[in-house]
Amino acid sequence: MGYCLGYALIEGGDAAFSMDASAVTFGPGALAEVGEEAAALGLRRVALFTDARLARLLPVEEARRSLGRAGIDVVVYDEVHIEPTDRSFAEASRFASDGRFDGYVSVGGGSVIDTCKAALLYATYPADFYAYVNRPIGEGREVPGPLPPHIACPTTTGTGAECTGIAVFDDTGRKAKTGIASRRLRPTRAIVDPTATRTMPKSVVAASGFDVVTHALESFTARPYSTRPRAPEASKRPMSQGANPWSDMGCKNALELAGRYLLRAVADAEDEEAREGMAWAATLAGIAFGNAGVHLPHAMSYAVSGLCRSFTMPGYPEGEPLVPHGVSVVVNAPSVFRALAKTSPARHLEAAARLGADVRGATPEDAGEVLATHLSTMMRKAGVPNGLSEVGYGEADVEALAAGTIVQARLVSNAPCAIDEEGLRGLFRGAFAYW
Amino acid sequence: MGYCLGYALIEGGDAAFSMDASAVTFGPGALAEVGEEAAALGLRRVALFTDARLARLLPVEEARRSLGRAGIDVVVYDEVHIEPTDRSFAEASRFASDGRFDGYVSVGGGSVIDTCKAALLYATYPADFYAYVNRPIGEGREVPGPLPPHIACPTTTGTGAECTGIAVFDDTGRKAKTGIASRRLRPTRAIVDPTATRTMPKSVVAASGFDVVTHALESFTARPYSTRPRAPEASKRPMSQGANPWSDMGCKNALELAGRYLLRAVADAEDEEAREGMAWAATLAGIAFGNAGVHLPHAMSYAVSGLCRSFTMPGYPEGEPLVPHGVSVVVNAPSVFRALAKTSPARHLEAAARLGADVRGATPEDAGEVLATHLSTMMRKAGVPNGLSEVGYGEADVEALAAGTIVQARLVSNAPCAIDEEGLRGLFRGAFAYW
Repeated sequence: MGYCLGYALIEGGDAAFSMDASAVTFGPGALAEVGEEAAALGLRRVALFTDARLARLLPVEEARRSLGRAGIDVVVYDEVHIEPTDRSFAEASRFASDGRFDGYVSVGGGSVIDTCKAALLYATYPADFYAYVNRPIGEGREVPGPLPPHIACPTTTGTGAECTGIAVFDDTGRKAKTGIASRRLRPTRAIVDPTATRTMPKSVVAASGFDVVTHALESFTARPYSTRPRAPEASKRPMSQGANPWSDMGCKNALELAGRYLLRAVADAEDEEAREGMAWAATLAGIAFGNAGVHLPHAMSYAVSGLCRSFTMPGYPEGEPLVPHGVSVVVNAPSVFRALAKTSPARHLEAAARLGADVRGATPEDAGEVLATHLSTMMRKAGVPNGLSEVGYGEADVEALAAGTIVQARLVSNAPCAIDEEGLRGLFRGAFAYW
Repeated sequence: MGYCLGYALIEGGDAAFSMDASAVTFGPGALAEVGEEAAALGLRRVALFTDARLARLLPVEEARRSLGRAGIDVVVYDEVHIEPTDRSFAEASRFASDGRFDGYVSVGGGSVIDTCKAALLYATYPADFYAYVNRPIGEGREVPGPLPPHIACPTTTGTGAECTGIAVFDDTGRKAKTGIASRRLRPTRAIVDPTATRTMPKSVVAASGFDVVTHALESFTARPYSTRPRAPEASKRPMSQGANPWSDMGCKNALELAGRYLLRAVADAEDEEAREGMAWAATLAGIAFGNAGVHLPHAMSYAVSGLCRSFTMPGYPEGEPLVPHGVSVVVNAPSVFRALAKTSPARHLEAAARLGADVRGATPEDAGEVLATHLSTMMRKAGVPNGLSEVGYGEADVEALAAGTIVQARLVSNAPCAIDEEGLRGLFRGAFAYW
C-alpha cells in the first residue's frame, strides 16, 4: 500500500482523482455582466429562468437590463416550482422546447438553476422524462452530447447548483427526491453577485447557509477517493468520486467562512461582509462537492422532503407543505456525524474546529460528539427546526424514511462506511431532537 | 470605499474577479488514461509533442501505448526546443499544419506544452507569426475562435503550463522572451502523473521547483484585482487580473507544500511523497497564477534568459547557452520581495511563514528581509545560482536588463506598485548575489 498526498492507495482502489470547475465571476455588481457574457458566447435569444417571487425583484430586472443592453432577445420563464417536481421539470422543458433558444440564463436559488438545467437538457435531447433520471428511479441514460450555454446567477448562498452538474426534483409519484447527474449539466459560467442575495428572507439565509455547511462537511468526510473501486474505464470517474485533496481545500475554506459568517448573516440582512463571506463559502463548497460528492445527510434529506406531509416554513411559498432543502439536510447531520466520526476522527475534529468549535483537549473518541454538539448549537442559534420531530416525523415514519434513503445509491455509496436500512433507521432515530 | 472578502474596492477599480481552471486528473499512473480521455473527446488522429530526451523515456512510451490501446493514430513530434524560440514555434506549427490532426497531446515540461499550444493555434488559425504575440513585440491579436482539444501531461513539477493559456518563447531577433496569451490556449485537460516526473534530473527539480515557488509568491503579492482599473467591457478581464480570493487559496496551499517538500525533492529523487507534494503544489500554483498573473520576478526573467550569453546548467541540453526558466526567475525574486514587501507587509510575512520561515517577533518593517532571506537560504540549499552574477551578469548589463523588462507590460503592470526603468535597474542591482 502506498500513499498519495496523505491518501492511502489500496489494491483495486482508484489512484487518481479528477477536478472540474465551472468558470465563475464573483463580486458585487457582477450580475450586470450577464449580457456581455451571453454576447461573448454568441447568444442572440435566451430563456431567462426565475420564480414568481424573484420575477418582480431587482436581480431579475438587472439581468434583463444587461441582456437588453447586449442586444439579446429575452423570454422570461417565471413558473419555476420551489423544490421542483417531475411535473414542474416537464413543464419547464416544454417551454424550453417551444422557444427555440440558443442559450439560457437562470437567476434564482437552486430550484431555479436546477430547473433550467433540466429544461435545456430535454429541449436539446428530447427523451422520455425518466430516461436521464438517476437509477434506480430512472434509466440513468448518459447525456448524449454537448448542451447549449447556460449562465447561472444564484440569488441564494447555498445550493452551489451554479457549480454542479446535478438537477434535483421531487418525484411526486414515488414521494421521493431524486435527480439527473452529468458533468455536461454544469453551467457554462456562474455569476455570483453577493448583492443579488439581499432579497433572501431570513429563513432562506438560514436554510441555504446550512446547505453550504453540509456540502462542506459531507464532502470533507466522504469516502476517500482512493478507496472507491477503480472503474474499468478509469477516466470515467463519477462526480461523487469521494473526498480528495482538491475538494478538501475548498471544504476547509468554506467551513471557516461559514463558522465565521453564517450566524451573522442570519442575524442581520444588512451585514454585507457576512453575506459576501457566505456567498464565497457557497461557491467554494459548491466546487468541492461537485468534485467529491455528498453522502448520508443529503441522501436522508431526499426522503425527509419527499415524505413531507404538513411542514411549512416562513419565507417559502405558502399553501403547500415543503421542507426547504437545507433544513431537510441539516436535521440529519448531527446524528450522522455523531455516529460516523469514528471512521476518520481527525477529519471530523478538524471540521469542527474550522466551524468554530473549541476542540482543545478533545480525543479522537470525542470527535463525533464535538462536531454534532457544535452543529446543533449553530442550528439552534439560527432558528432552524430542532431535528426531525419538529419537521413532523416520529418513530412511525422511520421505516419509510430509511426505505426512501437506501435507494439514493449514488450518495449512500459515497458515505465513509457501508450502511444498510437498519443502520439508516438508527441514524434517523438519532435525529429526532438535539436540544 | 467598501470591501469584498477582505479586498478594498476603490472607485474605478474592478469589483469582481473571474475564475477558470482546466480540468485536471491527478494521481500516480494517471498518464495511462490519456487514450481514454482522447477517445472521449472524439479524437482519431493526434500529434504527440515531446522533446528529444523525453522521446526515449517511459512517460512518452506510456502515453503512446495508452493512445494506441484507444485506437488513436499518433504522430510524434520530438523536435521541441527547450526554452522555445520564434523559430522553434514556427517549425512546430508547420508540422501541425501539415499533419491534419484532430487533437493534440503534449508530454513534457513547459517548453513542450507551450510549443504544442502555439503549434495548434497556428495550424488552426494561420497567421503571420507575430499576429498573436503579446504587444508591444507582436500585434496581440485575439485568438479568433475555439481550438482543437489538447491534453497536457507535464513531466516536470513547475511551469503550471498545463493549467494556463500562455505560451512563452525567446524572440531570437530581439533577444527577449515574450509569449502568446489567451484563455483559449488553456489545455482542455491536464493529466498530472507524479510518477512521470521521475525522469527529471536534480537540476530540473530545483529549477522547476522554484518556478512553483515564484508562481505562488508573485500571484499572492500581485496588484489586488480590485485596484486594477475596470475595463469598459467588464467581463473581459485579463488573465493577469491580480491577486484575488481564488488565487490566494491556491497560493497559500502551494507555498506550504513547497516549503515542506522542495528541498526534499531536490535531495532525493526517490522521495515519492516529496515529488507528489511538489506535483500538487505545481498544479495549485498553476491554477492560481493562471487566474491572477505573476509580476516582476517573471518580467525580469524574460530579460535574464533572453540576454544570456554563456550560462549552461547540467541536466539541460548541452552546446547552447541557456538559463532554465525557474532559475532566471528566482535569481530576481529575493531582490524584488525585499524592495516591494512594504506594499503589503502582512501578505509577504504570511508567504514567508507558509514557506517555512520563522516569523516570530517579525514586524511589518521586517517582512521584506524575512522573505528574501528565507528564499535565498532555500536557493543556496537547493544548489541554484547565487543571484545574477553567477548567471553571468554584472553592472554593465543592468541597462539592457531593465530595458528588456519594461516591455513586459502585462507583467510589469501586475506588480503591486508602479515601477519605471530606473526602479528596475535598482532591483537588478539588488539581485547580483545573496550569500
